Amino acid sequence: MNSTKAVYPGWDAKLEMILDQAADVFARKGFRGASIRDIARQTGVSLSGLYYYFQSKDELLYLIQKHCFQSLTASLEAKLQGVDDPAARLRVLMHNHLEYFLSNMEEMKVLSHEAGSLGGEFLAEIEAIKRRYYKICLGVVQELAGAGRMKDLSPRVAVMSMLGMMNWIYNWYDPRRDGKAHELARQMTENFLRGILR
Amino acid sequence: MNSTKAVYPGWDAKLEMILDQAADVFARKGFRGASIRDIARQTGVSLSGLYYYFQSKDELLYLIQKHCFQSLTASLEAKLQGVDDPAARLRVLMHNHLEYFLSNMEEMKVLSHEAGSLGGEFLAEIEAIKRRYYKICLGVVQELAGAGRMKDLSPRVAVMSMLGMMNWIYNWYDPRRDGKAHELARQMTENFLRGILR
Repeated sequence: MNSTKAVYPGWDAKLEMILDQAADVFARKGFRGASIRDIARQTGVSLSGLYYYFQSKDELLYLIQKHCFQSLTASLEAKLQGVDDPAARLRVLMHNHLEYFLSNMEEMKVLSHEAGSLGGEFLAEIEAIKRRYYKICLGVVQELAGAGRMKDLSPRVAVMSMLGMMNWIYNWYDPRRDGKAHELARQMTENFLRGILR
Repeated sequence: MNSTKAVYPGWDAKLEMILDQAADVFARKGFRGASIRDIARQTGVSLSGLYYYFQSKDELLYLIQKHCFQSLTASLEAKLQGVDDPAARLRVLMHNHLEYFLSNMEEMKVLSHEAGSLGGEFLAEIEAIKRRYYKICLGVVQELAGAGRMKDLSPRVAVMSMLGMMNWIYNWYDPRRDGKAHELARQMTENFLRGILR
């Protein structure tokens, strides 16, 4: 339908644009407050054009969440390839997470605030993708612990602290005050690593 | 109206009970999805009994937020009294925050998800209380930096990382898996402090 290449393999570029714009609308109006008509206005895509991709607002929210978590996971797996040192792997994980979050803040806000708005099959599938991402994070932290390089800290608490610290940024990050994503990622990563390393 | 003493000075104990139960309802049904009638059912207080305390659902949400941030701030200020060492002050801050959050998880979920649901005067007053709390946190971190005991890290990024790490817990904390609040607070605090200290 669109000649532009999708940013992530397996996703249609036009759909990616719609998801991105729809996340803006949801972040601004709330999921319940926004209508498919608002999405049509924002994207410039007709209602029938939108219904080509999804049948309901629920399915749209599901697609936004699925796209985010799949992209985040795919990009992490690609970057971890060939990196063996456990601390270096944790650095890769945190930089990937922060850079993705900082470039997709509206989606992140929607993911966080509307986590409870899905149900049934949609919710089950998103939970499964999230669990897979969590397991990769836990694996990376456990490698550090296994290599005897981690302080006496529960890997689960370490992972959840790390994710919380990063996921909260949509509440405060301001590029003018906090500088570029890369510098922020460096500060947060080194700080966290020093805390958990022996 | 009620013989029970309020937990926090300046707050009526019956109102505190209502705020606590109302937060449960909002956390479960969402702010927009819940009605004052749901609050009456949950608390066992009549509609006219509820309207004695607030005139609208917006005012109820404002009272929940105000109660949380005022209680958190008052308890922190009391505990910081007489503690001089900067690292000890940061420990007090984190323990206070975590213990309050872990004992009031439903309120925390509401605070976090419904931060954007207030407007006008209500929002302005909540923002002012939050800013005051943030300034205390920033002050504690700046004392560490001033004492030359902090790594080269922006105090603002340090405070926001710390708050994010702690505020995220309502998404994952499970007392059966993660143990008592006190032990969790100890792990998270020591981990964070090691990260930022020289």
